[in-house]
Amino acid sequence: MASVLLAVFVNGKICKDPKMVSANDFFFPGLNKPGNTSNPLGSMVTLANVNKFPGLNTLGISLVRIDYAPYGLNPPHLHPRASEFLFCVEGTLFAGFVTSNPEDPNVKNKLFTKILYPGDVFVFPQGLIHFQYNVGKTNAFAFAGLSSQFPGVNTIANAVFGSDPPINLDVLTKAFQVDANVIKYLQAQFK
Amino acid sequence: MASVLLAVFVNGKICKDPKMVSANDFFFPGLNKPGNTSNPLGSMVTLANVNKFPGLNTLGISLVRIDYAPYGLNPPHLHPRASEFLFCVEGTLFAGFVTSNPEDPNVKNKLFTKILYPGDVFVFPQGLIHFQYNVGKTNAFAFAGLSSQFPGVNTIANAVFGSDPPINLDVLTKAFQVDANVIKYLQAQFK
Amino acid sequence: MASVLLAVFVNGKICKDPKMVSANDFFFPGLNKPGNTSNPLGSMVTLANVNKFPGLNTLGISLVRIDYAPYGLNPPHLHPRASEFLFCVEGTLFAGFVTSNPEDPNVKNKLFTKILYPGDVFVFPQGLIHFQYNVGKTNAFAFAGLSSQFPGVNTIANAVFGSDPPINLDVLTKAFQVDANVIKYLQAQFK
Amino acid sequence: MASVLLAVFVNGKICKDPKMVSANDFFFPGLNKPGNTSNPLGSMVTLANVNKFPGLNTLGISLVRIDYAPYGLNPPHLHPRASEFLFCVEGTLFAGFVTSNPEDPNVKNKLFTKILYPGDVFVFPQGLIHFQYNVGKTNAFAFAGLSSQFPGVNTIANAVFGSDPPINLDVLTKAFQVDANVIKYLQAQFK
Amino acid sequence: MASVLLAVFVNGKICKDPKMVSANDFFFPGLNKPGNTSNPLGSMVTLANVNKFPGLNTLGISLVRIDYAPYGLNPPHLHPRASEFLFCVEGTLFAGFVTSNPEDPNVKNKLFTKILYPGDVFVFPQGLIHFQYNVGKTNAFAFAGLSSQFPGVNTIANAVFGSDPPINLDVLTKAFQVDANVIKYLQAQFK
Amino acid sequence: MASVLLAVFVNGKICKDPKMVSANDFFFPGLNKPGNTSNPLGSMVTLANVNKFPGLNTLGISLVRIDYAPYGLNPPHLHPRASEFLFCVEGTLFAGFVTSNPEDPNVKNKLFTKILYPGDVFVFPQGLIHFQYNVGKTNAFAFAGLSSQFPGVNTIANAVFGSDPPINLDVLTKAFQVDANVIKYLQAQFK
Repeated sequence: MASVLLAVFVNGKICKDPKMVSANDFFFPGLNKPGNTSNPLGSMVTLANVNKFPGLNTLGISLVRIDYAPYGLNPPHLHPRASEFLFCVEGTLFAGFVTSNPEDPNVKNKLFTKILYPGDVFVFPQGLIHFQYNVGKTNAFAFAGLSSQFPGVNTIANAVFGSDPPINLDVLTKAFQVDANVIKYLQAQFK
Repeated sequence: MASVLLAVFVNGKICKDPKMVSANDFFFPGLNKPGNTSNPLGSMVTLANVNKFPGLNTLGISLVRIDYAPYGLNPPHLHPRASEFLFCVEGTLFAGFVTSNPEDPNVKNKLFTKILYPGDVFVFPQGLIHFQYNVGKTNAFAFAGLSSQFPGVNTIANAVFGSDPPINLDVLTKAFQVDANVIKYLQAQFK
Repeated sequence: MASVLLAVFVNGKICKDPKMVSANDFFFPGLNKPGNTSNPLGSMVTLANVNKFPGLNTLGISLVRIDYAPYGLNPPHLHPRASEFLFCVEGTLFAGFVTSNPEDPNVKNKLFTKILYPGDVFVFPQGLIHFQYNVGKTNAFAFAGLSSQFPGVNTIANAVFGSDPPINLDVLTKAFQVDANVIKYLQAQFK
Repeated sequence: MASVLLAVFVNGKICKDPKMVSANDFFFPGLNKPGNTSNPLGSMVTLANVNKFPGLNTLGISLVRIDYAPYGLNPPHLHPRASEFLFCVEGTLFAGFVTSNPEDPNVKNKLFTKILYPGDVFVFPQGLIHFQYNVGKTNAFAFAGLSSQFPGVNTIANAVFGSDPPINLDVLTKAFQVDANVIKYLQAQFK
Repeated sequence: MASVLLAVFVNGKICKDPKMVSANDFFFPGLNKPGNTSNPLGSMVTLANVNKFPGLNTLGISLVRIDYAPYGLNPPHLHPRASEFLFCVEGTLFAGFVTSNPEDPNVKNKLFTKILYPGDVFVFPQGLIHFQYNVGKTNAFAFAGLSSQFPGVNTIANAVFGSDPPINLDVLTKAFQVDANVIKYLQAQFK
Repeated sequence: MASVLLAVFVNGKICKDPKMVSANDFFFPGLNKPGNTSNPLGSMVTLANVNKFPGLNTLGISLVRIDYAPYGLNPPHLHPRASEFLFCVEGTLFAGFVTSNPEDPNVKNKLFTKILYPGDVFVFPQGLIHFQYNVGKTNAFAFAGLSSQFPGVNTIANAVFGSDPPINLDVLTKAFQVDANVIKYLQAQFK
């Protein structure tokens, strides 16, 4: 991080004058507190990316805490700019990801899954759809590290059926090869 | 591309001995032929990535030709390792992409769309879900460039409802917040 | 693209406040119009880089349309920051590039060439001198994708014989190992 | 990860034939087990880099578990190819890092420190000397994520006073500006 | 550089088994010897890139020594994969580079030049055409550092007028806007 | 370097309006003057990084001149963001670097060294501790190139024993496994 006369910008974020930087810029407290999982998915992601944790600027890494109620789900999603490792701290998680389209059209997208117990790690490569599901009877939680200070997240159900404005009905009925009423029903869940 | 005694590997691909390289390695013919769109989606992607076009190795770029029958759809998908520009050559395409999840939970994923006429270009940032739909009465076709020699592609419907093995029913019913029969119906389309 | 309080800069370009971004930022119309080839070279490059197409910012890709009158030439040039694929849409193009200096001084720089018909693609690796020449009797045009949002272009004849100020005569006579009058004659073409 | 006929190498690691890849390649179990801290430093780092966890290949991320006995120390060290976040799971850690040399010779290298309680995160930028010290009366442990699949680690005391062969005595006495006996005494601790 | 069972490849170069690496891999002797400048250009470049100096593998840097007889010229050339700094050690060098084409067609490519005396440094950005000319009455020499372990070099005169096979006469006469005899004369110098 | 209306920032540095750029921005004079080695280490590093030499911005390279009195030492240090080549111009230098920790705990960090005479080059990989010591009876000097425009430097003795504030005594006594008085003595040299 270089200093210039007035202000410094690095990768789109304002970089503090080095003389004003303190230990607090590199410190992010409070990830011991469980996130509130009282929501339809029964999960909560608490995020420490560069927008919330300025010291990550230029460092190419960020992290999240994820909490899961029993049968809570971190639903199928992907990170457009990062790979991720997920470390199961408590509980029992069913985790998986789907590979890219095969170039051989007779082969299907592969689903790779594992049951994760405390101490187990699973890796989700950049841009692939992945999920975790609490298959135990107790709360679960996990930590994850991501290979970008600003990884982004696209939740499939929300992006496809809950965007603003909605994706055109013709597009979705053709893409999913179902009746328009099925799509309307799906879209109704994300209004 | 450097030469060594026996063989040379660059980014996972065998790199030819420079003395054996010829103009043909940098040449890819035949993209003037329309792809066959006689399929349920009414579209066909013809791909020239590094697996099919060795001269792209280390160059960080690849390309595709996309054909669309009337009302043909290149369904919602994403590229985990590349951004894309799409150039409409013939026909009328409705193109769109959905932004990443907002960090403010009261804001929805935004859908950005445009009607593309011949000569129009639209850009799809890396890892974001995008689609094109032929809204004209004639065949359409487009060319696209991608910022990777091996961009990958994840088609949302196939990855979510057609993976091998299928994603667990509990995961999908919770993710899409619908009845299991709806998910089974969706999965049945991609068996 | 991250948001900060006042303004956001990414890779040297101002990045819009995400709330102000619209579909138009990712849209570039009008590349169906042939460029005006009424000039000594008989060719015209119409460029869509990040300076003209803001949505390319951070995406690592850009594109051009190139038109050629009969016997029109896109003269020997190179891109200091990008590799390129060139797709021949109409006409017949003679395309080529020259490899880097061999480390074995008895070997010469190799010229790789192809005649491109509609649907053919040729690739020009980053920083190598390349050209296209319309060898047909009709107008030709091509699209190209480049692996940078700001690839730059150095046209050899203009850079070497038409710079401002001119390159010293002694330098050029020695470099090209010809009489000063030949260099003066060459320089006179680019005043 | 691309497939070729015989074998695939990515960034120096053999990449499996995609058809042979399984979920186990992306899975690393057992990080719930505390490392053995019965050693002079009272700490143990358990590492999951690409050498031990092949699925990290090309993903740009890795992780470690660190255990600390009471007054256990992860001594001053640095990672030549990665930045790191450290998440305190249990116990009380005193963590710090030292910034690069100031260009103004009258200013000293700054030490930034924090006491970390469970749930607190501290970040160590790439290549900077950092440490953690268990200042509580109980065992402590932490997880860390690193922005490289092969970050490397240089422990200062071992590299400076315990290398094989030892660094020349004249170099070290001058570098640390102390009597040769002091250096010999320091070196004796790392034989 | 990671070790695997049989062999390790990094960026296209074989990487030694770490146990077999020695100090000699990181050592390149003899750059105190002037290169032989008894050639038409009166200059000689002595190169230490990764092909000749294996320890540079993955390090992103290389170097050259350049010798110049009086009025010796390192002719206009460029490096497709590296920027360069040039440090004048002895003698008086006239050094310059030409910027990329302006996007405003009424502005010409700019030539930036400096007379370099011992101790002066000039920088040539990646992919731009540059040269050095000994304008003193004594031998001169310089060292240069390049931002790639395999920067490549394209000498303009040789690539344009001396390639194998030659670039088509029509292409060159149009590019340089001169009579074919001038081009033939230029080509004759590089046969 | 792109131009925008008001100002341009690239990688954290202000980038001049291209119309205001001149040859002086790419020029750094005066490295023929020996640095003043009248200091306890008997060495002086004269640095041309992007803060002092604006033309290096975005170019990924920088350089230093290093002078050594007889028995002068450039003490053990590292660059967090760059690899380095060192070219010995005059004198006799003993140069070395220490590799990363072995993953096999029974193996020690390896020290690689060479005696450098004029014309010899040694390479120091990114983030590894290295030094040079003048073992001749005359002044020595060297030039070095670094693979970053802002490489940073961490001098081990100063960072470990001379930081502001000092590293906690308990941390250092445990890290170096010596008596607190030894650490206090070491710290006293860097107050």
